[in-house]
Amino acid sequence: MAIASTKTKVRAKPVARKASPKIVSKNIVVESILTTPLAQQKVELVERKGIGHPDSISDGVAEAVSMALCKMYLERFGEILHHNTDQNEVVGGQSSPKFNGGEVLEPIHILLSGRAITQVDGERLPYSTVAINATKEYMKRFPNLDVYRHITVDCLIGKGSLDLIKNFEALKDQCRTDGYGNHCLLANDTSFGCSYAPYSETELVCLESEKYVNGEMKKKLPETGEDVKVMCSRKDGKINMTIACAMVGRHISDGDHYKSVVEEMKERVLDHATKYTDYDISLDINHADNPSTGNYYLTVTGLSAENGDDGSVGRGNRMNGLITPYRPMSMEASAGKNPLTHVGKMYNILANWMANDIVKKSNGNVLEANVRILSQIGRPISDPETCSVQLFMAPGADFNKWHKEAYAITDDWLDNIGKVTEKVVKGQVTVF
Amino acid sequence: MAIASTKTKVRAKPVARKASPKIVSKNIVVESILTTPLAQQKVELVERKGIGHPDSISDGVAEAVSMALCKMYLERFGEILHHNTDQNEVVGGQSSPKFNGGEVLEPIHILLSGRAITQVDGERLPYSTVAINATKEYMKRFPNLDVYRHITVDCLIGKGSLDLIKNFEALKDQCRTDGYGNHCLLANDTSFGCSYAPYSETELVCLESEKYVNGEMKKKLPETGEDVKVMCSRKDGKINMTIACAMVGRHISDGDHYKSVVEEMKERVLDHATKYTDYDISLDINHADNPSTGNYYLTVTGLSAENGDDGSVGRGNRMNGLITPYRPMSMEASAGKNPLTHVGKMYNILANWMANDIVKKSNGNVLEANVRILSQIGRPISDPETCSVQLFMAPGADFNKWHKEAYAITDDWLDNIGKVTEKVVKGQVTVF
Amino acid sequence: MAIASTKTKVRAKPVARKASPKIVSKNIVVESILTTPLAQQKVELVERKGIGHPDSISDGVAEAVSMALCKMYLERFGEILHHNTDQNEVVGGQSSPKFNGGEVLEPIHILLSGRAITQVDGERLPYSTVAINATKEYMKRFPNLDVYRHITVDCLIGKGSLDLIKNFEALKDQCRTDGYGNHCLLANDTSFGCSYAPYSETELVCLESEKYVNGEMKKKLPETGEDVKVMCSRKDGKINMTIACAMVGRHISDGDHYKSVVEEMKERVLDHATKYTDYDISLDINHADNPSTGNYYLTVTGLSAENGDDGSVGRGNRMNGLITPYRPMSMEASAGKNPLTHVGKMYNILANWMANDIVKKSNGNVLEANVRILSQIGRPISDPETCSVQLFMAPGADFNKWHKEAYAITDDWLDNIGKVTEKVVKGQVTVF
Amino acid sequence: MAIASTKTKVRAKPVARKASPKIVSKNIVVESILTTPLAQQKVELVERKGIGHPDSISDGVAEAVSMALCKMYLERFGEILHHNTDQNEVVGGQSSPKFNGGEVLEPIHILLSGRAITQVDGERLPYSTVAINATKEYMKRFPNLDVYRHITVDCLIGKGSLDLIKNFEALKDQCRTDGYGNHCLLANDTSFGCSYAPYSETELVCLESEKYVNGEMKKKLPETGEDVKVMCSRKDGKINMTIACAMVGRHISDGDHYKSVVEEMKERVLDHATKYTDYDISLDINHADNPSTGNYYLTVTGLSAENGDDGSVGRGNRMNGLITPYRPMSMEASAGKNPLTHVGKMYNILANWMANDIVKKSNGNVLEANVRILSQIGRPISDPETCSVQLFMAPGADFNKWHKEAYAITDDWLDNIGKVTEKVVKGQVTVF
Repeated sequence: MAIASTKTKVRAKPVARKASPKIVSKNIVVESILTTPLAQQKVELVERKGIGHPDSISDGVAEAVSMALCKMYLERFGEILHHNTDQNEVVGGQSSPKFNGGEVLEPIHILLSGRAITQVDGERLPYSTVAINATKEYMKRFPNLDVYRHITVDCLIGKGSLDLIKNFEALKDQCRTDGYGNHCLLANDTSFGCSYAPYSETELVCLESEKYVNGEMKKKLPETGEDVKVMCSRKDGKINMTIACAMVGRHISDGDHYKSVVEEMKERVLDHATKYTDYDISLDINHADNPSTGNYYLTVTGLSAENGDDGSVGRGNRMNGLITPYRPMSMEASAGKNPLTHVGKMYNILANWMANDIVKKSNGNVLEANVRILSQIGRPISDPETCSVQLFMAPGADFNKWHKEAYAITDDWLDNIGKVTEKVVKGQVTVF
Repeated sequence: MAIASTKTKVRAKPVARKASPKIVSKNIVVESILTTPLAQQKVELVERKGIGHPDSISDGVAEAVSMALCKMYLERFGEILHHNTDQNEVVGGQSSPKFNGGEVLEPIHILLSGRAITQVDGERLPYSTVAINATKEYMKRFPNLDVYRHITVDCLIGKGSLDLIKNFEALKDQCRTDGYGNHCLLANDTSFGCSYAPYSETELVCLESEKYVNGEMKKKLPETGEDVKVMCSRKDGKINMTIACAMVGRHISDGDHYKSVVEEMKERVLDHATKYTDYDISLDINHADNPSTGNYYLTVTGLSAENGDDGSVGRGNRMNGLITPYRPMSMEASAGKNPLTHVGKMYNILANWMANDIVKKSNGNVLEANVRILSQIGRPISDPETCSVQLFMAPGADFNKWHKEAYAITDDWLDNIGKVTEKVVKGQVTVF
Repeated sequence: MAIASTKTKVRAKPVARKASPKIVSKNIVVESILTTPLAQQKVELVERKGIGHPDSISDGVAEAVSMALCKMYLERFGEILHHNTDQNEVVGGQSSPKFNGGEVLEPIHILLSGRAITQVDGERLPYSTVAINATKEYMKRFPNLDVYRHITVDCLIGKGSLDLIKNFEALKDQCRTDGYGNHCLLANDTSFGCSYAPYSETELVCLESEKYVNGEMKKKLPETGEDVKVMCSRKDGKINMTIACAMVGRHISDGDHYKSVVEEMKERVLDHATKYTDYDISLDINHADNPSTGNYYLTVTGLSAENGDDGSVGRGNRMNGLITPYRPMSMEASAGKNPLTHVGKMYNILANWMANDIVKKSNGNVLEANVRILSQIGRPISDPETCSVQLFMAPGADFNKWHKEAYAITDDWLDNIGKVTEKVVKGQVTVF
Repeated sequence: MAIASTKTKVRAKPVARKASPKIVSKNIVVESILTTPLAQQKVELVERKGIGHPDSISDGVAEAVSMALCKMYLERFGEILHHNTDQNEVVGGQSSPKFNGGEVLEPIHILLSGRAITQVDGERLPYSTVAINATKEYMKRFPNLDVYRHITVDCLIGKGSLDLIKNFEALKDQCRTDGYGNHCLLANDTSFGCSYAPYSETELVCLESEKYVNGEMKKKLPETGEDVKVMCSRKDGKINMTIACAMVGRHISDGDHYKSVVEEMKERVLDHATKYTDYDISLDINHADNPSTGNYYLTVTGLSAENGDDGSVGRGNRMNGLITPYRPMSMEASAGKNPLTHVGKMYNILANWMANDIVKKSNGNVLEANVRILSQIGRPISDPETCSVQLFMAPGADFNKWHKEAYAITDDWLDNIGKVTEKVVKGQVTVF
């Protein structure tokens, strides 16, 4: 993006800790807005792509690779070096699923791309083997997938574009204080993140149902795969939940068995979902099945990626695990982005933490909070171009009081943005 | 996704036209909602990735390939056959930009993937040469890019997953009536589309500024490239516009010349933008430039993809050309999707048309309209699982009256959903 | 190569055994030639690329994949279906070897290509997982290579060109008799194979030295890797042997240790080599080493492919394990070729068997035998266009007598060409 | 292959000319051998793969890329930098040939790999665009191939392995004298080259027939493609020539037309071939054709690579344009190898020049000459480990006299080995 020397200078030692001056104005704007509360709106739509959905696999692999690179950089150099691994592609394989068996004909191909620092002061780094290994380790979470036989992984990760690196380097001497970075790093792009709180009941039902299916329920129903997509539409007081769930052929003997698995799953999921809501719930599983034509949603591995379904990073769930067209969303792909420098990723996470804190600490006075944060390239990430906080107040609540509280919470999180990096690297934040 | 024979049966002749029974209930829900109108909210954020942004290149190529395949299928078989070409990857090249010159060291690599019908009744189709040619033709719009030397294209488009095709085939006999499809096609997935109307002033400023830079202004300032990203943040009565615009080295002699180009561009864009708003506008172009360190946003081709920036489909602008975190958005990648059968794409477009029609025909009574439409796999696409219409009424407007009007408009568009296919194939709809 | 229907018809059941008419004339030409016997020529050059040489890895993988496909076809259909997997590419990785350690930075990438029958009567076959698995299993023979971490495998094997398949199919009904084929299959190409017998002493030294280094010696000297290249040049009564042998860093502590390994290896190899010859032998190992500049032939995996050395099929040893510029050679890549139909491969093997039989059975009357066999497309493979046998007779030997014997041996092997297929599939023939 | 710093130091300026000490002994061994002259042997086999054969395309592209890189390096740095581009892969496309038309369904994919210096003193070089452009320019020689639509090119050329580069660098200061190198460069590998002279009549017929078909004859018969394979087998006084020649569908109206083209071609080729021999010649063109089943060797582009036939470097013709199992051959792939440093390539060419010079200057006294040259890594390339010259003398010729002459010629060529580099770079030597 700029005329720059091709020498990639990367410091191998963390710089000394310096006092970070408190930034006074952070362009925080807190306002009260009117809205029909979501629960009173007649319709609500919520979607969650489960961990085995091709887009979620892409996200999961992207994030696992970034975390593994962070770990390698930290171990060797005491700090996180430049990388973005948010461009992989899960290319669907070919399979021949059958009751009582089936086989994978062509493996799922995972093509890692993106950019990373591959050499420091003449020492070449094992970025490629680290990335490939992280991918294989991540894929081990799918119990019916044989990582040795059912996937191929290729790594085309290249060196980052040079001006970004240069920019990043220049910034480091100004204000970095520890391996996880601190509040006065400068933004390397102009982008935004956003989130909201709290979850609506419909959202909780959607989110928790998938977690249940791919968590606790698996022990009871190993016949179900991990490629689970949950769609909830609430109309007035009723939630229609539609689940597409890949079934695993070798655990299912025939159509009757399949039918009984679907029925048991339906019962269990409904039981679980009702813990999160008072709405009536109807549930439809694998709607396209048709026993008369022999059409079942059957797989070998529990993943539709085995048979032609491709996945990409950033096209699935937002950072809070959901796709919510009635809520603020960012287009930014968070998975795989550098957790030290990528403002889009960091602001998405931070906005979520802010909104949740504001609502939680308000004791019911703030019913809904929306947070949106915009960076400007070259400006400290703790001092965004705009930090917009919108509060929907409970009837009778004192906006002036809670305005101050929200401002303080927001201000404090911006001062502590380094926590985002820390928690991501430690694996304490999910981003999809 | 299912047990299915591997024979791909595709009818080579359009089926005879049948009467399409009018669907009475379409699950349309029109409601009035309260909101603080966007113009009265203190903050607003809007982004547009210009046509040369790597993500927009991905979208543009995906859509061009889909359109070319549609054309081939229509010419040979009288109907659009199954395909989805929404999975390409623009892999950044390497370049050495210089004032008065510069050169591309490694070309931009465009890897086409996705699925398409590649053979019909034993006749193999030139899907690959058609796709590659469409890509190269599309890339000719970038005047400083030499399609022969600066890009490589590879095509890994494979056959679609079989159950989808089977499903599609089964459905065709039920209700298709013409090459562009008609209202009683059945949905092949459970997904949603959404949009809103009208554009806010900030949105218009953002959208029209990029169009101006990559349109009318180019004749005056050929030094500017096509990779243009426009970010607008409005705080109260002022819009801060930030533009990152790749400059073209061979048209610029030195740093002084560069500076004068930026200044002239700034003046021109501000002049143009003020046509769309009464807000004050400030404009910042290429904020990361730093003459003292020789840092300029300089390129050979006018595209940052020449030097390490990658692009993916579906991560940029939504169907209305913008990224709008204060508005309903869908995650669905529209570009490259089959315009006959992909409900996510079709509903995004349809929702946009509905919202605009409702607002336009309301004579100021409906101030804002949000439309969200959800399909269910196996159900006619003209009869969605949910079609949610939210109206924000002008003070004193009669909701009952405009409720009926909005319902009728919505109902009518669902009956005429085939128009979406028709207009996409004819190139009359942009999707990013 | 021809206008042909795209339907790939492949019979799933072996055809019934038919009587194979004995072919009378097979264009066998036996002649006596004059020559200075190799042992009396002043100079002789012989080379062997060891099993870990990148070209040999390519050959080994190609053959392993072909054998695995044969096995799959035989198990499912009772016969070997069309395939040629002789086009893989071993793309060198990047490594950072060190004494006492070292690591692989980028894995060795093995790109399988070629053609195979991937679908039979609508049943899709696991050709891709079979090929990938065969590759990984093959690579397990390198003890310092971690198959899970140090290689990536990708499979781009496609369907064969159609006329060949059609031709092959058409032929089958004429004369096939068992799964391994029989003598009246028709040739699918115009190509030749050739070989000779016996090995000269220099050849034996070259061949057996590598086998020793990568066999028996490994237990004593695990510090030595498998990438071993042996070059022998004999001048009059002295053989100069040059060996390049990759050493394994983690088994070697420093330069002194390295030196002692080389010295022990030298002693052992010389001891072993003298069993095969009365010539004097000098031996030079890793000639480019230079302790003063820190230049050692050190690796992590024992394979130079870990660090930038690429390999291709068919560029290394001929079918008898050697490269012999003083002997007849064929350019045909045998590894990975279909052992049922590929005449180049089959004739190379057959020629070797013929030449050896002729010499062995002649009781010293035939000193050297050269055999070259040429097919013609469409003609039975047991009835070649030409089968040239050249005999160099011992002084006083009766050519007329041994001419008849050689003719009979040759004639008999052509009648039993099916043995080639059988032995290849059973893993009883090496081809490189 | 060794522990080496990763810094690639490459001098940007040619070093000053130094006196090159004449090497006295070059291990040249000239001997006289007995043999039955080839013309008196009963059988002879010769093959030539024409320029459009997939393996020849691979060779041609590899050499074109190397020449283009040489040119770039010479223009920028005054010397040829390290590269080897001998590892490309021509992956067959898919086509649907027809009389009067036909179309390419999937393009031929040319995957460039190998190694090259990509950066010098911080300046990154356009090696990738140079290589891709050279490939496309090379492919323009096939008149029925549309380079824009019928091929895709991808470049995966990487940096060379480091010790080779280091070695190369170290050597340069010792003895280089000009851009084309000179006689005291040190060998970077232990490998050999070989050749012979003169061509036999059968060899001439084979070679010249292909040159005629792809040369002068094309103007008369544009219906013939460039993928031409010529196989000659001589038995006693008769040459059986078999030609496979791809025909171009759009120039041929039907089977009758095709038949007449084959007949005219047969007549013309026979007419031409008889200029080179007194042997009787029979000719068979496209033996697998079968009008009754509609089987013709028909193509869209004149190349079988359009429909599934793959090509690799180094598996086709040897440096003298032929495959000759009755002659000394080297396995070394010459095409694409660095013409300054790759001893295998240089010795193949040099051996050919030596053999031809010896025969030509002997005035009929030397009937056949075989030359084989072996390098040793680290030793000057003008002082090989062995240079073996075998002469088959005319009856009555004075070996002692011609021995000296042959020695002198050989010795002189070794002193002038830099001519090889020069002529290759200038495009005055063909290598396949």
